[in-house]
Amino acid sequence: MLEELKKKVYEANMLLPKYGLVTFTWGNVSAIDRESGYFVIKPSGVDYDKLRPEDMVVMDLSGNRIEGNLNPSSDTATHCELYKAFPTVGGIVHTHSPWATSWAQAGRGIPCYGTTHADYIYGEVPCVRNLTKEELEQYEVNTGKLIAERFRSLDEKAVPCVLCKNHGPFAWGKDAHEAVHNAVVLEEVAKMAARCEMINPDVKEAPQELQDKHYFRKHGAGAYYGQV
Amino acid sequence: MLEELKKKVYEANMLLPKYGLVTFTWGNVSAIDRESGYFVIKPSGVDYDKLRPEDMVVMDLSGNRIEGNLNPSSDTATHCELYKAFPTVGGIVHTHSPWATSWAQAGRGIPCYGTTHADYIYGEVPCVRNLTKEELEQYEVNTGKLIAERFRSLDEKAVPCVLCKNHGPFAWGKDAHEAVHNAVVLEEVAKMAARCEMINPDVKEAPQELQDKHYFRKHGAGAYYGQV
Amino acid sequence: MLEELKKKVYEANMLLPKYGLVTFTWGNVSAIDRESGYFVIKPSGVDYDKLRPEDMVVMDLSGNRIEGNLNPSSDTATHCELYKAFPTVGGIVHTHSPWATSWAQAGRGIPCYGTTHADYIYGEVPCVRNLTKEELEQYEVNTGKLIAERFRSLDEKAVPCVLCKNHGPFAWGKDAHEAVHNAVVLEEVAKMAARCEMINPDVKEAPQELQDKHYFRKHGAGAYYGQV
Amino acid sequence: MLEELKKKVYEANMLLPKYGLVTFTWGNVSAIDRESGYFVIKPSGVDYDKLRPEDMVVMDLSGNRIEGNLNPSSDTATHCELYKAFPTVGGIVHTHSPWATSWAQAGRGIPCYGTTHADYIYGEVPCVRNLTKEELEQYEVNTGKLIAERFRSLDEKAVPCVLCKNHGPFAWGKDAHEAVHNAVVLEEVAKMAARCEMINPDVKEAPQELQDKHYFRKHGAGAYYGQV
Repeated sequence: MLEELKKKVYEANMLLPKYGLVTFTWGNVSAIDRESGYFVIKPSGVDYDKLRPEDMVVMDLSGNRIEGNLNPSSDTATHCELYKAFPTVGGIVHTHSPWATSWAQAGRGIPCYGTTHADYIYGEVPCVRNLTKEELEQYEVNTGKLIAERFRSLDEKAVPCVLCKNHGPFAWGKDAHEAVHNAVVLEEVAKMAARCEMINPDVKEAPQELQDKHYFRKHGAGAYYGQV
Repeated sequence: MLEELKKKVYEANMLLPKYGLVTFTWGNVSAIDRESGYFVIKPSGVDYDKLRPEDMVVMDLSGNRIEGNLNPSSDTATHCELYKAFPTVGGIVHTHSPWATSWAQAGRGIPCYGTTHADYIYGEVPCVRNLTKEELEQYEVNTGKLIAERFRSLDEKAVPCVLCKNHGPFAWGKDAHEAVHNAVVLEEVAKMAARCEMINPDVKEAPQELQDKHYFRKHGAGAYYGQV
Repeated sequence: MLEELKKKVYEANMLLPKYGLVTFTWGNVSAIDRESGYFVIKPSGVDYDKLRPEDMVVMDLSGNRIEGNLNPSSDTATHCELYKAFPTVGGIVHTHSPWATSWAQAGRGIPCYGTTHADYIYGEVPCVRNLTKEELEQYEVNTGKLIAERFRSLDEKAVPCVLCKNHGPFAWGKDAHEAVHNAVVLEEVAKMAARCEMINPDVKEAPQELQDKHYFRKHGAGAYYGQV
Repeated sequence: MLEELKKKVYEANMLLPKYGLVTFTWGNVSAIDRESGYFVIKPSGVDYDKLRPEDMVVMDLSGNRIEGNLNPSSDTATHCELYKAFPTVGGIVHTHSPWATSWAQAGRGIPCYGTTHADYIYGEVPCVRNLTKEELEQYEVNTGKLIAERFRSLDEKAVPCVLCKNHGPFAWGKDAHEAVHNAVVLEEVAKMAARCEMINPDVKEAPQELQDKHYFRKHGAGAYYGQV
């Protein structure tokens, strides 16, 4: 079942080592079939060089395993909450990519210092707080709920990624491939923001009008980037 | 038309991923045929691993597409202004290469700290200011005009690159290949300048006489580097 | 003798260049056969691209060479002390991996800033002091004894690595492969901790309850990561 | 003539891109035949992927080209001075490797922060001053003389490398291969020293007795590292 989607999720997972976003098994990609309400996710702790399309696990949005012999990613419940909260999202990725994770460990959102950021992410990449001791009892579910709560005042299409304090990033998109694309963007943006603060500790965010110009050059009715 | 130039522009574009200057489609190279006044540029938003010589777009200096089915790079109008302002320039490249972009985001020009810089760039790499809201209405054209304005007091042959605040670098040269060569130099120079300030926050520019020695070892009538 | 173990130690040594943990011959992996009390270790100063499984040297825990024509690693006596002190350890690795070595040179233990660290290492990675002049007379033996002394108040299974001041890291595990795995983790953790302090000089350790959650998600009776 | 030496110098030059020490043509290796007093050096400005053993240029110690159609490296006169000053040296390398060059640009010698440094370099890597305007008139010769002057109080066998302020490093050894080996060591040591100061701005040099222990573990009559 969902063979085509499994293949796409497999391929998107394999992009993580290609783009240097994962060490060992520290990442996972999923994608959802909105019609059936099922999503497909990487199995937990399986090496990327042993991963096969048929290893992907099919889950429903209540957290039941519908198909597959392997345990799904330990972060599955977070993916599940995000699919429920973000109806426009078709794919989700979690990694421990080094620069984004360094910002998450530092407990800071990433300011928009330039057009590379503004081309993809409208405004700051937010960093959500630590869970409380009580919330940690249902760690993965509550991580998803906390992100969803933070995005009540944000548009998940305009800000396709988030940092979890002392943990790492999640990114998403209309499908698994776009989610990974956004995770790569986030890592580049995180790297350049850190270096830019090193070069100029008093650096300010890019002017709002420049952020607008670049974001809307690529997104919305007036976009004119690419071959559309 | 301009088949030979298209091939060279294609090859110069393919050097960007080879030298680690681009992620995804974040860069573009063009070159001009001064006789016809036409220039050839990468199409907008096309992946480097799908790019073909015949995809290159031919433009005139009034911004009209002369040949090609694809949209030209969204930065085409900036290239156009630079060709008009810099008659000695035959090739132009724009990237978001990480170190140069970090300096651009920091809003600082790159001081000449050593001979690697002085071998190719005579004096500081300038960083031009943000465009005003009004100027942003014609973003790409005015980016080019602003760079040209800055170079009224500089020699574009002696300073073959520039940073645009909160955006990224442009570099140029006598042809597309030399433009990319200078973009690689800029990225190395940007990296070492940032690290050098980290190692010694009170670092001073290299003595003028050392800058002169190295620049003129490679450029002008007295040059004695290479095989002439 | 111990042909199977030699092969495994050889393969674990070859992972060091694969994961970018060594330059030239700056690293060594060993593993012990607890039944015979013999351990197998890389020969001293042999290039990784010339290394063969049959070059591995067999030692006993009194420091005698039992088999092999080559001199064992110059750090053999340190490995020996650690096998004697840590009965649960089956494999040990020493490298000069750049980020972990930078922390060791800085003389600081690595605080636990996030879940990447907590997934593998319970609490700070300790940094042991310099040996005294007298202790340096038996440098390699006393390095091992000093680490063992530091771990009287620590569990070597929960903290599978250590830094030696002005020197570099040692890591270990149930076998040679797991030891190298932990050395890779340590290098990633060291890199992200340094960058995280650069991004936020006032950063605090991750909350204890988050460290507990992640460590025990992967270790002990309640673990639920992976395919068990 | 000197065909065997040309081949070795060619191979040593090709190690520079392999170890990531050069961009474009920013480096050169030479080696001397002490019997004839001739040395062999890379031609100036020739791309590494076009270089051939027969392109190497043969020079004498008076600076005359003895054999070869190409111009020798523009730094040839510096190599020449060093061969005259250091009778124990058989090979010399100059690069603009990024970390060592960053220290040179910062105008600082590299303190010995750990055993990776002490294993190869006894004490600080010195950084020589800028040449005066007058000295710059014979730039390459006087660079060599300045280094030689600095080493009147140092042993070139114990300190096999140097930084030139606002320029970059030179390294040497008993032959071309060892010179390149030392250039790789220097780049690693420079990288880790910079990061170590970032992690602990108050870091002190490694204790002298630890430096002695490591240096003499590998060098001199009491050495016991490797297979000697």
